[in-house]
Amino acid sequence: MYDVIIVGKGPAGAQAGIYLGRAGFKTLILFKDGGSLEKTDYIENYYGYAQPVEAARLLEEGVQQAKRFNVEFVEDEVVMFLSSEDKNIIVKGLKEEYTASYVIIAAGMTRKSLNVPGLKDYEGKGISYCVTCDGFFFRNKKVAIVGYTRFAEHELNDLLMFTKQAYLLTNGKALEFNASDYNDVTVIDKQINVIYGEEHVKGIEFKDGSKEEFDGIFIAYGTADASSFCIKSGIATEKGKILVDENKMTNIDRIYAAGDCINSYMQVATAVSDGALSARAVIERLKADRKNIKR
Amino acid sequence: MYDVIIVGKGPAGAQAGIYLGRAGFKTLILFKDGGSLEKTDYIENYYGYAQPVEAARLLEEGVQQAKRFNVEFVEDEVVMFLSSEDKNIIVKGLKEEYTASYVIIAAGMTRKSLNVPGLKDYEGKGISYCVTCDGFFFRNKKVAIVGYTRFAEHELNDLLMFTKQAYLLTNGKALEFNASDYNDVTVIDKQINVIYGEEHVKGIEFKDGSKEEFDGIFIAYGTADASSFCIKSGIATEKGKILVDENKMTNIDRIYAAGDCINSYMQVATAVSDGALSARAVIERLKADRKNIKR
Repeated sequence: MYDVIIVGKGPAGAQAGIYLGRAGFKTLILFKDGGSLEKTDYIENYYGYAQPVEAARLLEEGVQQAKRFNVEFVEDEVVMFLSSEDKNIIVKGLKEEYTASYVIIAAGMTRKSLNVPGLKDYEGKGISYCVTCDGFFFRNKKVAIVGYTRFAEHELNDLLMFTKQAYLLTNGKALEFNASDYNDVTVIDKQINVIYGEEHVKGIEFKDGSKEEFDGIFIAYGTADASSFCIKSGIATEKGKILVDENKMTNIDRIYAAGDCINSYMQVATAVSDGALSARAVIERLKADRKNIKR
Repeated sequence: MYDVIIVGKGPAGAQAGIYLGRAGFKTLILFKDGGSLEKTDYIENYYGYAQPVEAARLLEEGVQQAKRFNVEFVEDEVVMFLSSEDKNIIVKGLKEEYTASYVIIAAGMTRKSLNVPGLKDYEGKGISYCVTCDGFFFRNKKVAIVGYTRFAEHELNDLLMFTKQAYLLTNGKALEFNASDYNDVTVIDKQINVIYGEEHVKGIEFKDGSKEEFDGIFIAYGTADASSFCIKSGIATEKGKILVDENKMTNIDRIYAAGDCINSYMQVATAVSDGALSARAVIERLKADRKNIKR
């Protein structure tokens, strides 16, 4: 049980951790990778470095800085959030489940996403982003998972509890796990051209002109980025950004967000501010919670 | 003539300068001192430094960083802004006047200010913060300047164009200039107890119980901080903070503000974000201006 779980170890997440750890709250940072900074060589426009600083070094400085204030770091990929009965937040990772009073999503922005005609048209009309949420509706049906990563494997695992007609559509990408470990799965490695249907999704046409009909399609493409675990968890987004109020809280109580996943400017300088402000808001609430307990 | 003049060389100001310089705009930073960072030993909660960083080093790193992008630095104390006929902003310093298309106020927050009963009651009713603006109303009257710094001297100089009954009230502080250089000035070095009046200000009572009547009082206490030069320039403030819109623009077109002077959290992490965002907004406007000129 943590006071706060932060998702993401980049500037927004680590900055939030620094404030929370410094304020004495038990804080865990879950991360799957180093996000945008890991894909950047040098940063020269973040205040405080006369000479350009290697992005990897900045990332590592931030992690070490948060660790100095007793923030814990665990490598795991967050899949979904659930509210528990006692108002805590359960964070489901690929490896484990974690619980905290508050969550700050600082998961950055994955540029990699599935962009196929028809996808947006059938969201909620046979296309879903969460097997745990919607798998039940497709029991014993013919269902596709679009994906190729460990995250897709996680979704596939869930899906096989509901149906034996499971298809894994890699969209031409190399599988990152061994699909032959699973029975009842047909792998299609062709590139997807378009998702078609009428009122409801009907199937997928591939670039070679062939078609395959499905009752339902689950998107588990790339890693579990903010937009996918937000959709699963009922967190409101707009144009790929998480919507937050002036305190950086999402539409779900106790879940906050900071950094590139809320901010269109996507700069280190703005991410750290989001991190600091979300931490400040959470600290205020934690203090109020403690007062109420004492009463 | 500059594209942008930034007031203040702290995190907000230097961060704005870094963005503007990097975008190729002719940028000047005017500063009177190093602000809050200069009064701090170490910073340990600003993202990017695993070990606490000396505040003085952070300040210097930021200055050097901005200089790498050709931002100019000039030590001068800003007194007031004026809009010129061609829509540029004239920045009046104690030493010189400067002109720019845009201004970003990142002047931080001076904690030193005059706190005397009656002061707020008579603002605009005989109490003013700007001799240039209001000196004319008090020509040939008995007028006090409350102050002891070079900034007070600047105001005194202006006042002597209007009256020969000038009083300099140091409130017990040591004068930082030679008042005997000026004729027609009476120096009172007693501590001020209260400013009194009826509809209009009438005078000042000192802590020794003595009183002196005045027709008008000009406040020029301490240095020209944001609140004093804002009041002079018609920039709206509330509770000592400059009011800005979502683009960090003040109520005066082309004048923006960032950092501690707008933000109650007063952290380096929030100041750099303000700096980046104000610079971004100004860059957009400069680009639009250039397009319009070409047309």
